Amino acid sequence: MKPQYVLGLDYGTNSVRSLMVSVEDGREIATATWNYAHGENGILLARDPNLARQHPSDYLEGAKQTIVAALEQAKAVEGFSPSQVVGIGVDTTGSTPLPVDETGLPLAFDSRFEGNLNALAWLWKDHTSIAEAAQITEVASQMRPQYLAKCGGTYSSEWYFSKIWHCLNTDAAVFDAAHGWVECADWIPAMLTGTQAPQKIAVSVCAAGHKAMWNDEWGGFPDAEFLSALHPKLAGLRARMSENVRAIDQSVGGLSEEWAQKTGLRAGIPVAVGAFDAHLGGVGAGIAPGTLVKTLGTSTCDLMVVPESQNLADIPGLCGIVPGSILPHFYGLEAGQSAVGDIFNWFVDVLKAGTHQELTEAAAKLRAGESGLLALDWNNGNRTVLVDQRLTGLLIGQTLYTTPGEIYRALIEATAFGALTIINRLEEYGVAVERVVNCGGIAEKNPVVMQIYADIIGRPMLVSRSSQTCALGAAIAAAVVAECFDSFQEAQNTMTGIKDVVYTPNPDAHAVYQQLFALYGQLHDAFGTPDGGGNLFNVMKTLLDIRDEARK
Amino acid sequence: MKPQYVLGLDYGTNSVRSLMVSVEDGREIATATWNYAHGENGILLARDPNLARQHPSDYLEGAKQTIVAALEQAKAVEGFSPSQVVGIGVDTTGSTPLPVDETGLPLAFDSRFEGNLNALAWLWKDHTSIAEAAQITEVASQMRPQYLAKCGGTYSSEWYFSKIWHCLNTDAAVFDAAHGWVECADWIPAMLTGTQAPQKIAVSVCAAGHKAMWNDEWGGFPDAEFLSALHPKLAGLRARMSENVRAIDQSVGGLSEEWAQKTGLRAGIPVAVGAFDAHLGGVGAGIAPGTLVKTLGTSTCDLMVVPESQNLADIPGLCGIVPGSILPHFYGLEAGQSAVGDIFNWFVDVLKAGTHQELTEAAAKLRAGESGLLALDWNNGNRTVLVDQRLTGLLIGQTLYTTPGEIYRALIEATAFGALTIINRLEEYGVAVERVVNCGGIAEKNPVVMQIYADIIGRPMLVSRSSQTCALGAAIAAAVVAECFDSFQEAQNTMTGIKDVVYTPNPDAHAVYQQLFALYGQLHDAFGTPDGGGNLFNVMKTLLDIRDEARK
Repeated sequence: MKPQYVLGLDYGTNSVRSLMVSVEDGREIATATWNYAHGENGILLARDPNLARQHPSDYLEGAKQTIVAALEQAKAVEGFSPSQVVGIGVDTTGSTPLPVDETGLPLAFDSRFEGNLNALAWLWKDHTSIAEAAQITEVASQMRPQYLAKCGGTYSSEWYFSKIWHCLNTDAAVFDAAHGWVECADWIPAMLTGTQAPQKIAVSVCAAGHKAMWNDEWGGFPDAEFLSALHPKLAGLRARMSENVRAIDQSVGGLSEEWAQKTGLRAGIPVAVGAFDAHLGGVGAGIAPGTLVKTLGTSTCDLMVVPESQNLADIPGLCGIVPGSILPHFYGLEAGQSAVGDIFNWFVDVLKAGTHQELTEAAAKLRAGESGLLALDWNNGNRTVLVDQRLTGLLIGQTLYTTPGEIYRALIEATAFGALTIINRLEEYGVAVERVVNCGGIAEKNPVVMQIYADIIGRPMLVSRSSQTCALGAAIAAAVVAECFDSFQEAQNTMTGIKDVVYTPNPDAHAVYQQLFALYGQLHDAFGTPDGGGNLFNVMKTLLDIRDEARK
Repeated sequence: MKPQYVLGLDYGTNSVRSLMVSVEDGREIATATWNYAHGENGILLARDPNLARQHPSDYLEGAKQTIVAALEQAKAVEGFSPSQVVGIGVDTTGSTPLPVDETGLPLAFDSRFEGNLNALAWLWKDHTSIAEAAQITEVASQMRPQYLAKCGGTYSSEWYFSKIWHCLNTDAAVFDAAHGWVECADWIPAMLTGTQAPQKIAVSVCAAGHKAMWNDEWGGFPDAEFLSALHPKLAGLRARMSENVRAIDQSVGGLSEEWAQKTGLRAGIPVAVGAFDAHLGGVGAGIAPGTLVKTLGTSTCDLMVVPESQNLADIPGLCGIVPGSILPHFYGLEAGQSAVGDIFNWFVDVLKAGTHQELTEAAAKLRAGESGLLALDWNNGNRTVLVDQRLTGLLIGQTLYTTPGEIYRALIEATAFGALTIINRLEEYGVAVERVVNCGGIAEKNPVVMQIYADIIGRPMLVSRSSQTCALGAAIAAAVVAECFDSFQEAQNTMTGIKDVVYTPNPDAHAVYQQLFALYGQLHDAFGTPDGGGNLFNVMKTLLDIRDEARK
């Protein structure tokens, strides 16, 4: 039998990637990326610093460009031919919904909305909907507390209904023209298999469950009565939402003739249900019960799976607990930090305190605790466990001798303390973390960060073998829907692995960091919780109020 | 009658200056500076970041160099001749004590102690004596609470006995070899008028009262019983301390033949009692009842005078309330911030976030409150009103978009909030602040800082006409001891003035800053006081403990 290959199509924040993977052993034989053409690094911005949009034409162009390039590259591999590619998987950022017409085409392609940022895809990191998110949380806490229990007790401004409602509140013309709003993760597979009316587009459990309050327990998406309480027009939208919700081990259909011709792939090969990048990254990193997969990028996504047979309590502050969202037959648990690499990048790019390399070298020379500094990792809010966008950064302990390297290390440490806070929350609610597998650029490239994480978290830090875990996970989904394997577990065992290097905790450093973590906890509770001691919960909030007033 | 001139000799942290001033109208006809030759910018440092020493040979060389140069410059003024210089005044940093032998010569000149940093002058900003300061405070609070009441309730690590005791604890050979420890402010006039045994050197009320717990109420310096409780050898030193304590309107003697020859000045012209730079800066800025003089430099000194006839309560947190220390017949009140310009310099020089000019321009474009940032100005501890060296900086409100200009402005604002905290404390205790006169480099050169101060403090900010207020104040003291005037007030009226430019508060900005100041107060009390709400008093302290442990 000829070797088989699968293609993972991975939509990131700034670019899209195609990865060609051998089904036999997970070998990655070709990869191509394409940077989105619109906006700044692929993101359309505005005066409002909360706004972040993307143009859906970049998604289609990126698919074409990278698939063609990856195929071309793969042809150099002996014995490869495009006909041996047996399936496609797709992962994207999320929640990144876009308004579409009756045929599933974006309003952004409609000349009536040319230049209107609200007709584009609303990127995950768009935070314009803070007010709507707060109101959804408020209404749900009274009418449908069960909705909130599955998403950590707070509905986020990053998520589906917050964004759509904000569009309704601020640009009714776009809202009214939209027949539906489709997550990018669902829209790409729909485009690859032939455009469809939004109410028929296959919707992934992953996106629906984590971002749109979908759950089998209450029969799918939030009910019309609840949505009416937010706004009657949202109930109207509800009637047009797809009921075609599928888990990741299913196909949405075969590759269309049009896309076969555009790319050189075979028409009809199965396209897997889409999923969020970090979720398929978990798959590509070998997620399994007891294994925490941390994807360390500009932000982080922390994933675990728990067998559906286990009696799992709701976990306060977790973004989502959704059956089948990562692996079939397992609860998918999603946590995360709103900014990790983004904080380091801010220090380098905006504060211009040195290059990453210089600062990392300086940070590496320091011992735990010797800077006297401590930071909170909230420069972009706190996703888990506080679920609060209106939190900000804090740095304490500066003297007249404090160096950029010391601050850089304190920022790294802060993100590790944030990571440990998430692990502790999981364990408090009965989810044992036996193994931590890291992936993403920081895990790959920065051993100093990984050692600090090991020292602070007090567990060995493993690193995924693949440096493209998201695309690899998408490729694994493709291999499953192409029926190369009987299960995800079997596919993961064959196609994923761990690097040889393991970062083990230094006991002395860990002891110092336990003291620092206690102080971090004090600051965390004082500034981040209304009743956590300190009576300082108002400080960050009031500063933001004053700021917003001053910017009017 | 020929015009008369006086010479002010001003010893700063990094250099010494001579200023030749016309007695008639305060016109500054010549000035010369000389940078200390030893150490980094005149300061000898060590691995311990708390250590800061100076070589007394720099003091003598600096006097000679600058007097000669100023005289040379003055000769270009029509009708000037050196014989028209009728007196010399001296101001120095402090508390900057140096160990001397039986003849008043520094141990630093003794070959036995060559290269020994402990035999040098212990510069005001030397903080090696934190432990000793805490113990002095502890013992005094039990045995002699009256000592503390006059210095804000806490004896500082910057002050005379802390430093001497630290030398005794860590380098007994130097302590034992020292016949006495003389403040730089007293040692310079002694050198200019002929060396003397330390127990005969004229001691200024200013230095003794503010730094060495000297007070007429209890008969001078702290008593031997109290000093014995610290260490028996300190009581031994007490027996050799000078009782020759004099106010600023007195002369210590005439210029010696040796110094007349070295400089070209007339032998025998009176040399005024020395005083601290900021105190004579207050005189040179026109200090008077109701007028707060703020000297804004690397740190600040805030001075007021209150008539001795007024019933003045002890003011918690004030560094000193000493009769006659600034002007005869007035209480001299001294407050201050441990770092102001030093914080801005840290941001520029250590964090390399841009030049002062770039950052000032960026800061000037911002409106009050629009950065969302708030800082505490404690990077070098807090002198007034918390009197606590073991406090550190804090910055809150950072996002991923926070710019260096925003942080720079937040640091400026933090120092202004610190300044307002001092003013509020003065007024709470019955010292009305009717007028604020600023002097020092920042007041001179940075209108953006001055406007922010006006907006935050809510009072007009005036700026002293002279840019050399300390040296001018020393020259005024010279004019008084040379009997050119009957009183300091008369001399000040003739020789000092205010610039035309006045910074008046913008009411809108002030309203925003009042909100921010309330938040500053919350952070100030939470982190700076054990019972101020917040339960976070331990955070900065524990970070420093962990740091000190890690650096061992």
